[in-house]
Amino acid sequence: MKVKVHQIADLIKAEVEGNPDEMITHPDKIETAGRGAITFFSNPKYEKYLYSTQAAAVLIDANYQLSKPVPATLLRVENVYLALSELFSFFDQNKPKPAEISNQASIHAGATLGKDAFVGAFTVIEADVSIGDHAQIGSQVYIGAGVHIGDHVRIHPGVKIYHGCQIGDHVVLHANAVIGSDGFGFAQDDKGQYTKIPQIGHVEIGDYVEIGANTVIDRASMGKTILHQGVKLDNLIQIGHNVVIGSNTVIAAQTGISGSTHIGENNQIGGQVGTAGHISIGSNLKIGGGTGIISDIKDGGNYFGTPAMPLKNFMRSYAIFRQLPAMDKDLHQLKKTVAENKKR
Amino acid sequence: MKVKVHQIADLIKAEVEGNPDEMITHPDKIETAGRGAITFFSNPKYEKYLYSTQAAAVLIDANYQLSKPVPATLLRVENVYLALSELFSFFDQNKPKPAEISNQASIHAGATLGKDAFVGAFTVIEADVSIGDHAQIGSQVYIGAGVHIGDHVRIHPGVKIYHGCQIGDHVVLHANAVIGSDGFGFAQDDKGQYTKIPQIGHVEIGDYVEIGANTVIDRASMGKTILHQGVKLDNLIQIGHNVVIGSNTVIAAQTGISGSTHIGENNQIGGQVGTAGHISIGSNLKIGGGTGIISDIKDGGNYFGTPAMPLKNFMRSYAIFRQLPAMDKDLHQLKKTVAENKKR
Amino acid sequence: MKVKVHQIADLIKAEVEGNPDEMITHPDKIETAGRGAITFFSNPKYEKYLYSTQAAAVLIDANYQLSKPVPATLLRVENVYLALSELFSFFDQNKPKPAEISNQASIHAGATLGKDAFVGAFTVIEADVSIGDHAQIGSQVYIGAGVHIGDHVRIHPGVKIYHGCQIGDHVVLHANAVIGSDGFGFAQDDKGQYTKIPQIGHVEIGDYVEIGANTVIDRASMGKTILHQGVKLDNLIQIGHNVVIGSNTVIAAQTGISGSTHIGENNQIGGQVGTAGHISIGSNLKIGGGTGIISDIKDGGNYFGTPAMPLKNFMRSYAIFRQLPAMDKDLHQLKKTVAENKKR
Repeated sequence: MKVKVHQIADLIKAEVEGNPDEMITHPDKIETAGRGAITFFSNPKYEKYLYSTQAAAVLIDANYQLSKPVPATLLRVENVYLALSELFSFFDQNKPKPAEISNQASIHAGATLGKDAFVGAFTVIEADVSIGDHAQIGSQVYIGAGVHIGDHVRIHPGVKIYHGCQIGDHVVLHANAVIGSDGFGFAQDDKGQYTKIPQIGHVEIGDYVEIGANTVIDRASMGKTILHQGVKLDNLIQIGHNVVIGSNTVIAAQTGISGSTHIGENNQIGGQVGTAGHISIGSNLKIGGGTGIISDIKDGGNYFGTPAMPLKNFMRSYAIFRQLPAMDKDLHQLKKTVAENKKR
Repeated sequence: MKVKVHQIADLIKAEVEGNPDEMITHPDKIETAGRGAITFFSNPKYEKYLYSTQAAAVLIDANYQLSKPVPATLLRVENVYLALSELFSFFDQNKPKPAEISNQASIHAGATLGKDAFVGAFTVIEADVSIGDHAQIGSQVYIGAGVHIGDHVRIHPGVKIYHGCQIGDHVVLHANAVIGSDGFGFAQDDKGQYTKIPQIGHVEIGDYVEIGANTVIDRASMGKTILHQGVKLDNLIQIGHNVVIGSNTVIAAQTGISGSTHIGENNQIGGQVGTAGHISIGSNLKIGGGTGIISDIKDGGNYFGTPAMPLKNFMRSYAIFRQLPAMDKDLHQLKKTVAENKKR
Repeated sequence: MKVKVHQIADLIKAEVEGNPDEMITHPDKIETAGRGAITFFSNPKYEKYLYSTQAAAVLIDANYQLSKPVPATLLRVENVYLALSELFSFFDQNKPKPAEISNQASIHAGATLGKDAFVGAFTVIEADVSIGDHAQIGSQVYIGAGVHIGDHVRIHPGVKIYHGCQIGDHVVLHANAVIGSDGFGFAQDDKGQYTKIPQIGHVEIGDYVEIGANTVIDRASMGKTILHQGVKLDNLIQIGHNVVIGSNTVIAAQTGISGSTHIGENNQIGGQVGTAGHISIGSNLKIGGGTGIISDIKDGGNYFGTPAMPLKNFMRSYAIFRQLPAMDKDLHQLKKTVAENKKR
């Protein structure tokens, strides 16, 4: 693929500083980009590469102040990552597949498929399923009875959706994710044995949600487990029964949200975070990776540690934790000194 | 579905306080239950809803002392969660499928299927497999050679069972769980390279075990990895090779048990717990979420932290961890004071 | 299977101490081994069993000094685990399947299969895929367009490989692992909404890599996510986009490596470890289970804790953390004493 800098500038609405006729062949990372590459600069950690890059062109923030000349042509944009998203779409080989229903899929006569849908081989679609227009259902997917799937949804191979779940428009589900498995609910009798509590609710997933590979969203015991519009979940995440997650909250890999916990909007939650059940977590929070949340958290702020505390406080305490042996020695020395002083 | 309160009372063996002819249409949570709903009260956190609920009926503990009148009809029961289990079974739409062997499954001629079994589309059953009566094997399941599966087992779509594993009666396996994958065993040579140690054992799963979605149980290097009767595992759990878990131990999501560790009976183990390998963990324990267990633990008690310590002790130490910067300042001030006292 | 001790000694190049004509029927663990069993001794924790075992033969280090006589015949070897690997291969029932392409697989006309390959039922192989000689592709596997798979690769049921990924020779992929799913990359607009950044890179997996069940390796945003030769990953691991892992690094279950982090060679990384993104982790490290790494680590050393610190230092600090309530009491008492001394 060959394209001139000014053509890309038009596409991503950038202002060009340098040669608009420079030829671009592919995107690459700033630390490795060579001739013909277009790259981007955003994380200050990579600043040294900006001034030495062999790339033909660099996406950069409209207001970024250079400290010396950059050899490449610059493309100044309002939001580097949004521009990158458009740029990568342009170069993406992974286009949606043409509409086609595999004759090796098993589709119940009572299911409804939207127009221009794609359904891959060895996929099972049960009774009373409805699938929207332009949906792309990969191979080896299972869609249980009564599931509704919106328009422009993309489901990658091996995803399993249990009966009755509701999936909005423009949702992406990655390979081997499981939606609507039973919540972890058992009743213990007086002999200590557990009886399963049937999980009779379901899962509701809003528009523009993306769910990572091998992530699991449990159905509600009754009512709904809800992911609101624009939620983005990474891989290998666990969402317990009756959890509610507010719009535009993003969660990194391997985090687990216990049953009946409610999470607000616009949160950035790190990887391997765990929460207790039946708690309420606010909005506009940043939760560091590995944090363990055992009680309610109000809106705003950065949290870290287990049990969670404000990040700054945690780091101050941890700095002293590292010095505890010295502190302990100090205290013992001081006790001795005080005892001696007393004797005098 | 429409049913009168006294019919439900008969079903779950409850005593009615209020109108036995009240009409019930569906179960709902106490915080959202409206007209026609039957709900339950158990967690004291939700007490305020008890006295204001619009629900038609509420399941409640036989001995619970009301502090004011409840608008709904009460159903007094010995064990709220056991009653709930029966109630939800009554309302559950997700009944077992009628006996049927899909003609789109691949079943080896040397496999044996019990009576009234269901096998879904695109499932593979290898040689010398035996499957019990009333078993429900979902779509896209893989059952390796020589596997035995008991009666009344329910296997959800996408589960993979490696050769030779033994599954008891009334077991439930959720979607995309993997049973019998190779344990993580390698021998390092003097150049630092690893050679795989073939894992020649298998997995044995007792009756009434339930295993969550995307959970993995590794086969033994030799001998057996064993889950005893009534063990309940949540989603995304890792069980290493040669692990043994005692009866009625329940483990929440994303916990990992390292190889050759033995765990006793009747434990409640939280989510994201990790254990070292080759250790022994007792019975009747409560292990808090995120705990890291690096050495043996005796029977009984509550544990938390990494490395694990008794919960109460951890919380006391952590309360002071939060105050470490103040403590450090105190100590410095005290050193100064003592030095000054000495000079006088 | 019946074999004499001297035949096994020839196979694994062992020196026999005892009866070379002793009959062996199966391998077993030292704590349970009975008549006819061959077992091994390596972990000193199990020493008591060595002197009382009923086994017919025991693999043991060439230089191990016995403290009393052992009832079994000894097989002295240079490296117990390498010898065990050969021994188990000898007893392993799980041989590769004979070459065969299932007529229930869906294989694109534009895909190329090597000689003596096995492809199981309900597997999908897309256009421009090339698969090496003697490859074993299990059932219900998905291989996306343009994927290359080397010789002697073994892919277990349910594995999903997205388009364009490159898999070396002698690689093992366990059930339901996902290779090449999209990295977690989104651009946030000024309303707080996220737009997906297309992930246009891929995954490159070196020779002799083994990847556990339900593990996920994300494709690069651009360029490659790389696992170098001999990397061994356990189950349920998350590898983010653009991560690079050096040769012969082994990682235990449920660990997560965030995007763009580079890890060196010959590391032993425990389970449930988490790392920040965009950091550099050296070689020849031992990282304890549950460690959280938030900044660069140089070559060599043992680490533990979150944030990570040298293991020895962590354990010293944690020993005092356990005593913090007593220390706090001491400090208060001392303050009182000092205040009283001052008054005098």
